[in-house]
Amino acid sequence: MKALQYTAIGQAPEIRDVPIPVPGAGQVLVKVTAAGVCHSDQFVMSLPEDAYRGSGFPLPMTLGHEGVGVVHQVGAGVSSVAVGDAVAIYGPWGCGLCHLCQQGKENYCERAKRDGIFPPGLGRDGTMAEYVLIDDPRHLLPLGDLDPVENVSLTDAGLTPYHAIKQSLPKLGAGTFAVVIGTGGLGHVAIQILRALSGATVIALDVSEEKLELARKVGAHHAVLSDDGAEAAIRELTGGRGSNAAFDFVGITPTMNLAVRTTAAEGDATIVGIGGGTASLGWGTQAYDVAVRIPYWGSRSELSEVLDLARAGQLSVEVERFSLDDGPEAYHRLHEGTIAGRAVIVP
Amino acid sequence: MKALQYTAIGQAPEIRDVPIPVPGAGQVLVKVTAAGVCHSDQFVMSLPEDAYRGSGFPLPMTLGHEGVGVVHQVGAGVSSVAVGDAVAIYGPWGCGLCHLCQQGKENYCERAKRDGIFPPGLGRDGTMAEYVLIDDPRHLLPLGDLDPVENVSLTDAGLTPYHAIKQSLPKLGAGTFAVVIGTGGLGHVAIQILRALSGATVIALDVSEEKLELARKVGAHHAVLSDDGAEAAIRELTGGRGSNAAFDFVGITPTMNLAVRTTAAEGDATIVGIGGGTASLGWGTQAYDVAVRIPYWGSRSELSEVLDLARAGQLSVEVERFSLDDGPEAYHRLHEGTIAGRAVIVP
Amino acid sequence: MKALQYTAIGQAPEIRDVPIPVPGAGQVLVKVTAAGVCHSDQFVMSLPEDAYRGSGFPLPMTLGHEGVGVVHQVGAGVSSVAVGDAVAIYGPWGCGLCHLCQQGKENYCERAKRDGIFPPGLGRDGTMAEYVLIDDPRHLLPLGDLDPVENVSLTDAGLTPYHAIKQSLPKLGAGTFAVVIGTGGLGHVAIQILRALSGATVIALDVSEEKLELARKVGAHHAVLSDDGAEAAIRELTGGRGSNAAFDFVGITPTMNLAVRTTAAEGDATIVGIGGGTASLGWGTQAYDVAVRIPYWGSRSELSEVLDLARAGQLSVEVERFSLDDGPEAYHRLHEGTIAGRAVIVP
Amino acid sequence: MKALQYTAIGQAPEIRDVPIPVPGAGQVLVKVTAAGVCHSDQFVMSLPEDAYRGSGFPLPMTLGHEGVGVVHQVGAGVSSVAVGDAVAIYGPWGCGLCHLCQQGKENYCERAKRDGIFPPGLGRDGTMAEYVLIDDPRHLLPLGDLDPVENVSLTDAGLTPYHAIKQSLPKLGAGTFAVVIGTGGLGHVAIQILRALSGATVIALDVSEEKLELARKVGAHHAVLSDDGAEAAIRELTGGRGSNAAFDFVGITPTMNLAVRTTAAEGDATIVGIGGGTASLGWGTQAYDVAVRIPYWGSRSELSEVLDLARAGQLSVEVERFSLDDGPEAYHRLHEGTIAGRAVIVP
Repeated sequence: MKALQYTAIGQAPEIRDVPIPVPGAGQVLVKVTAAGVCHSDQFVMSLPEDAYRGSGFPLPMTLGHEGVGVVHQVGAGVSSVAVGDAVAIYGPWGCGLCHLCQQGKENYCERAKRDGIFPPGLGRDGTMAEYVLIDDPRHLLPLGDLDPVENVSLTDAGLTPYHAIKQSLPKLGAGTFAVVIGTGGLGHVAIQILRALSGATVIALDVSEEKLELARKVGAHHAVLSDDGAEAAIRELTGGRGSNAAFDFVGITPTMNLAVRTTAAEGDATIVGIGGGTASLGWGTQAYDVAVRIPYWGSRSELSEVLDLARAGQLSVEVERFSLDDGPEAYHRLHEGTIAGRAVIVP
Repeated sequence: MKALQYTAIGQAPEIRDVPIPVPGAGQVLVKVTAAGVCHSDQFVMSLPEDAYRGSGFPLPMTLGHEGVGVVHQVGAGVSSVAVGDAVAIYGPWGCGLCHLCQQGKENYCERAKRDGIFPPGLGRDGTMAEYVLIDDPRHLLPLGDLDPVENVSLTDAGLTPYHAIKQSLPKLGAGTFAVVIGTGGLGHVAIQILRALSGATVIALDVSEEKLELARKVGAHHAVLSDDGAEAAIRELTGGRGSNAAFDFVGITPTMNLAVRTTAAEGDATIVGIGGGTASLGWGTQAYDVAVRIPYWGSRSELSEVLDLARAGQLSVEVERFSLDDGPEAYHRLHEGTIAGRAVIVP
Repeated sequence: MKALQYTAIGQAPEIRDVPIPVPGAGQVLVKVTAAGVCHSDQFVMSLPEDAYRGSGFPLPMTLGHEGVGVVHQVGAGVSSVAVGDAVAIYGPWGCGLCHLCQQGKENYCERAKRDGIFPPGLGRDGTMAEYVLIDDPRHLLPLGDLDPVENVSLTDAGLTPYHAIKQSLPKLGAGTFAVVIGTGGLGHVAIQILRALSGATVIALDVSEEKLELARKVGAHHAVLSDDGAEAAIRELTGGRGSNAAFDFVGITPTMNLAVRTTAAEGDATIVGIGGGTASLGWGTQAYDVAVRIPYWGSRSELSEVLDLARAGQLSVEVERFSLDDGPEAYHRLHEGTIAGRAVIVP
Repeated sequence: MKALQYTAIGQAPEIRDVPIPVPGAGQVLVKVTAAGVCHSDQFVMSLPEDAYRGSGFPLPMTLGHEGVGVVHQVGAGVSSVAVGDAVAIYGPWGCGLCHLCQQGKENYCERAKRDGIFPPGLGRDGTMAEYVLIDDPRHLLPLGDLDPVENVSLTDAGLTPYHAIKQSLPKLGAGTFAVVIGTGGLGHVAIQILRALSGATVIALDVSEEKLELARKVGAHHAVLSDDGAEAAIRELTGGRGSNAAFDFVGITPTMNLAVRTTAAEGDATIVGIGGGTASLGWGTQAYDVAVRIPYWGSRSELSEVLDLARAGQLSVEVERFSLDDGPEAYHRLHEGTIAGRAVIVP
């Protein structure tokens, strides 16, 4: 079968012909119907040799950690999914047995690192191929009638902001404000989640009027340029108090500190974007009892909830389609910054 | 000044001329701009003599526990409100000092009963007069630009469902269902609160198509006749599982048991209506870990939040206006069941 | 192998010789080192033929839903446990895939009933045999160095009160009170859990001085006879307010209503015992916002937590040992009420 | 009356004779029975002139923000306390009316800074005098039979760690670990609170064996020197995962970062000490979803709970007594670091 693989450190990924995997006992083979292109793939491909080898990732490695498909073949002992089922792939695999995995929080598995358990596309062969091998049927959720291409990105670009926001919902009731910094792939979904599940007035920030237009279109009450005036603008829109929860989908030092500084007492400042920044906290730096957190991806039950939101018509991802052969082009365009919303590869 | 008073057991209330109260140290005199008419006033006026006397209520007693107005005069030591301020009156007064009052939950004051502390209109002179005496400025919240007549009912018909719903919000995220039984004065506000603050699909029940029409108008996703088929209808609409939270604004035995029986595991069945019913719980009667609760009114900070919702344009109460002189007529019409939404007296 | 089986409706269970099961792909065979004897087994054996058949339970059926053992053989594809591992069996099996199972709450599986998924000993062959077949390694938790006989009952008599109590811990901080009704198998563990994890003053109730003595021994601050004076005694011990959480391990109508009536505003009244009673709720019956709940067993991660408590030396179960051959005698003694604490069968 | 006042920038405080205040309407005059000496008083007295003036603090100013006493005289309109009542003074005064004050969280009052509302001893005359004027009876809590000198420090050195810990209690159940950095005035109370209210194994850190001895005496399970090996020691004691909540009562950069780095996924790292440090957060710096927070003092209802803990015999503060005349000496000794536990002034 064809697969889009990362084959040599620092080289662009390429289409290669590889054997179709055979599912062993307890495993499932899924025919991929859509796979999402993500900035974190680029981050992985930008690592120098030492860092890449140190992470335990193989070479070559099929890319893709967002994926949906149809069950093609099941191994011995698998009864919970059947050939032909449309499924979404839960990506952050864990051991399934530790205290956090017992609660479905495999994204925080206590043993994954120690035991070398990796998500597809981030340490083992991923979804950018005609078929992908799944280690356990618990990592497959019913997709139902949801369109594969329109919804594949929910497995990461939907789940990640959902997990970040869900923890703050108790603070986002009547008369509250939420700040979203960065309104791209994850941020424009975050705005929709906030509108669907909270009572907060949503203030979106980004660096261009074009991006702010998308923010408004998907439901932001206010859209503000993320420049030197941003802090004052947030303070004015919130009656001087600051927001009750800020979500930073950029993650560079200025956006992290903006999130921290503009959050009101007892609020949440959550850093989602992996921009390499550092937030500084101290007495007088931020309001009392602001909780600053850096979460990662989401839990299995949360992915079910995200799919439920999509079924209810409350989430819509902007997508641009590419064939598997055009996969390298998709990453090139992502690097150039010319993808509108999320690029999706349709094998 | 004129006041609408309950003067004799079992008699209709009447307009009487009474002295304007004078605020002592720490007290405030409010000129009433609107007062809401509530079923619980009727309940009080239907009590037999023994029960009325036993409750500690005086005779005569000015009616009215929903009220908004303008600060007219302040007693010695009052500095937190000023003459001319538009205010909403927080009704469930408590001692202000016990563990629950310390958190602003005066509705559950541990000493109110023992110490004879009553809400205005429910044990001491209320808001259906030209002026009302407030014991402490903490019971006055800024009304701001909100229209008095449109919003006076939020102090009870808004606050009571808000308090009931707020506790269930963590259970009303993505992919969930809420049931509202009874879509009148409180219920039609409950539907709006659920739409503003939760991700739940709202299923409203009432006994006539006319009432269901109002339910749909204010945002219910489904409106179902509350008859023998109601349980089956709820089960079908929720994919067999039942709702994640049910709110019964009627409170008779059949509606209470309907709420309990149609709630899914780990859900909430909350009884708000004072219809005199009894719910029966046992193994097999309801799903596991359903929490059955009977709350009462709400806290001070919750009233602030309700007013914030109204300011954000997310709450709208159906009202019909009456003059103070027409107060007895308003109660008559309420008794007849011909009030559309909520009757409001404008002194 | 030998197995203690229920073979005919209404008959005492008997020792029979049955084949040792062979684990299929994804399954595990466990050599049993201890199995707990529970009242609910008796309840099952007391069902009339129609009810028993209607429940979907087989005949004959090996008894035992509490169990610990050692992994004896693993099926194809099983890698998370290894032959020789000491394990505790998580009993309330679910589908593993529904929204609740995704969070490890298999006790509330949405599909178990529909799909005929039963716990061992309660619908399929259980732990009262030399070996027991486990459907999936996720139902096995590391037992480690914990003594099998001393701790086997934690899988139900520990997990069930733990699950009930855990939900109420936020209400059991400084200056609070917890009531435990029934201090037998589950109740005497409940007292220890409350002492280990909460700040509550624990008030235990039972019907004899002998049982109250055990309650005091395991940590109850107060032990009160459960008679006509119980309500007044609770009220006096709590300064008139009632408890912040009551746990009824009896579950007959008088104990259920005692729990409901003696709980303070915003408290929890949780019914755990399956005594066939009915609680009645209505305005004036109980304090405002008391949450009345009937939970069932517990989640996978909660069983891990119970085992952690035992490892920390904070739980100790009173046990009496029986051989497998003496299993029928153990049930006879349980029926007579002459078991001190919990009977445990050691195959 | 005599008062210990700060009279000139940079000078030691001195005893002065000042008029006894007269309570106006709504105010209360309290005869002080004990006043606590705190590091933050020293911090205030170390401020340069500009900073002191900028804070809005007066000169001279009577010191003391920890205080208990007896009601001596009440102003007009005060009925909730009576002459002769033994009371504890709630220090972090707020407006009483904003959304946070409505919940008793005056420590986070939204208007205090804007409106110039200060705690006694930190911006207005405090408790180190024969009498202190209280602005509102809501700031007085019943002390009951608690010994004034033994318990006065609970109003800050008890309330502050209590507030910090209370938010983390849901994360401190069975099988969890808590880290306490700094076991002095606040820290040694924190250890006792953790033991009384949580199931956590408590790991205490400090810089000398002598201080670790006190930590063990008040209940720490492990006491570890806070040196270069501390991080490794915490990791080993927690089985590699880190703690579920860390509380830093020092607040310098090394202790803040130690707290952040040694907290496990989903845990809390709470900085309480005002040591002027800065914590740095970023991807890879700390575990996922660790919440880093800097709280301040506590709420009114929390002070009630702290006093309840003391009444239950679960808190004991190490104190050293000084007369009012010896107040300057107490601050001198505090500065020298030779106070064992907490210095208390007895006027």
